Amino acid sequence: MIRVGNGFDVHAYDEASPLRLAGLDWPGEPGLSGHSDGDAVCHAVVDALLSAAGLGDIGELVGVDQPGTAGAASTGFVRLALDRLAAAGWRPVNVTVQIVGNRPRFAARRAEAQQAMSELVGAPVSLAATTTDHLGFTGRGEGLAAIATALIEQA
Amino acid sequence: MIRVGNGFDVHAYDEASPLRLAGLDWPGEPGLSGHSDGDAVCHAVVDALLSAAGLGDIGELVGVDQPGTAGAASTGFVRLALDRLAAAGWRPVNVTVQIVGNRPRFAARRAEAQQAMSELVGAPVSLAATTTDHLGFTGRGEGLAAIATALIEQA
Amino acid sequence: MIRVGNGFDVHAYDEASPLRLAGLDWPGEPGLSGHSDGDAVCHAVVDALLSAAGLGDIGELVGVDQPGTAGAASTGFVRLALDRLAAAGWRPVNVTVQIVGNRPRFAARRAEAQQAMSELVGAPVSLAATTTDHLGFTGRGEGLAAIATALIEQA
Repeated sequence: MIRVGNGFDVHAYDEASPLRLAGLDWPGEPGLSGHSDGDAVCHAVVDALLSAAGLGDIGELVGVDQPGTAGAASTGFVRLALDRLAAAGWRPVNVTVQIVGNRPRFAARRAEAQQAMSELVGAPVSLAATTTDHLGFTGRGEGLAAIATALIEQA
Repeated sequence: MIRVGNGFDVHAYDEASPLRLAGLDWPGEPGLSGHSDGDAVCHAVVDALLSAAGLGDIGELVGVDQPGTAGAASTGFVRLALDRLAAAGWRPVNVTVQIVGNRPRFAARRAEAQQAMSELVGAPVSLAATTTDHLGFTGRGEGLAAIATALIEQA
Repeated sequence: MIRVGNGFDVHAYDEASPLRLAGLDWPGEPGLSGHSDGDAVCHAVVDALLSAAGLGDIGELVGVDQPGTAGAASTGFVRLALDRLAAAGWRPVNVTVQIVGNRPRFAARRAEAQQAMSELVGAPVSLAATTTDHLGFTGRGEGLAAIATALIEQA
């Protein structure tokens, strides 16, 4: 038995913050705002995994009103989602994430980020990055979006 | 045999209309404009189901030039799409929808809406809601977007 | 063994260029800017196929710094991605693309474009088109977006 889930997340850039994206630190790149570390890739992956299993969304998993989430590493949210999936008898088959934004310069570290996310999820995670030809809020460099799709199966 | 389909829909808010979203009425929330009831969740689900089965898109299924579609309940469009799938030998495995927008306040009724959509589709439908950190037309509160992905199998 | 991949691409309109979209010529419609022919449907499909197989993204496959890509037909990029998949033991099950934009007027040639893309990919490709109710860069007629999801299996 196999199921699909999707997730989408956006964060505005915050030059004053360090960037955490796809579970990596990106020194010299503009950070992302957010109650946690603003890692939009991890957030979209969490929503895709939870949605595939019918286990709610990230707001219910780690609401901003919950203790310990301020400034939290979003990789922990992915681990928490995977725990919920495992408890319900599901495991990820693979996850695919399209990153949309002008920064960071992703290509040079795409393979490294993909490896980090695949180890975190325990299944293949593909990361691709694109821009929007100067259009919209991503094209104007105001923020970054991540579109995730996950396939899961019964463990 | 299994196939995947996606769908995307956007409607502008129309304060003068009642809100219909995910097959529910949302008293006190701003409505969505549209030739039908503007239920972007149902519309994205229809496109995802039809696309998975290679049966066209919502414009062909219920064009604005067709009688009876003005102000129509979009849940009827979902039933019509499911009829077309069944006639072609397909049934939904599961559907996942990411809602993007500032309103309605979705969390309090997420489970109820998910239940209503799952009963309508006859398979698990996951609903997740997010915002875009004040960016873009969804962040400015101009409209709502819905991103749907459907998995179907031969009946 | 089955895997899912997604892809997203945006190009701004360029009235001075001829339009190439979904592998077809669209006389009388505004073209899309880009280093290649700007065919956003083909680009999103390439990213979806490569991501499903964990084979990188379109930037690595056909970077703008590679010879022969200026003005190139993007259908060639799809063929190149399929070659990479085949070499890695994968073949497409089906692909679904949601086109988002005011132009071209897609409905009249939807079936023809879907047929052309299906022949190119060697598996069912579904194409659906929608608009964004005058919202955002697609609603203002500044550009076109394509959202693709691909399912692949071991050959």
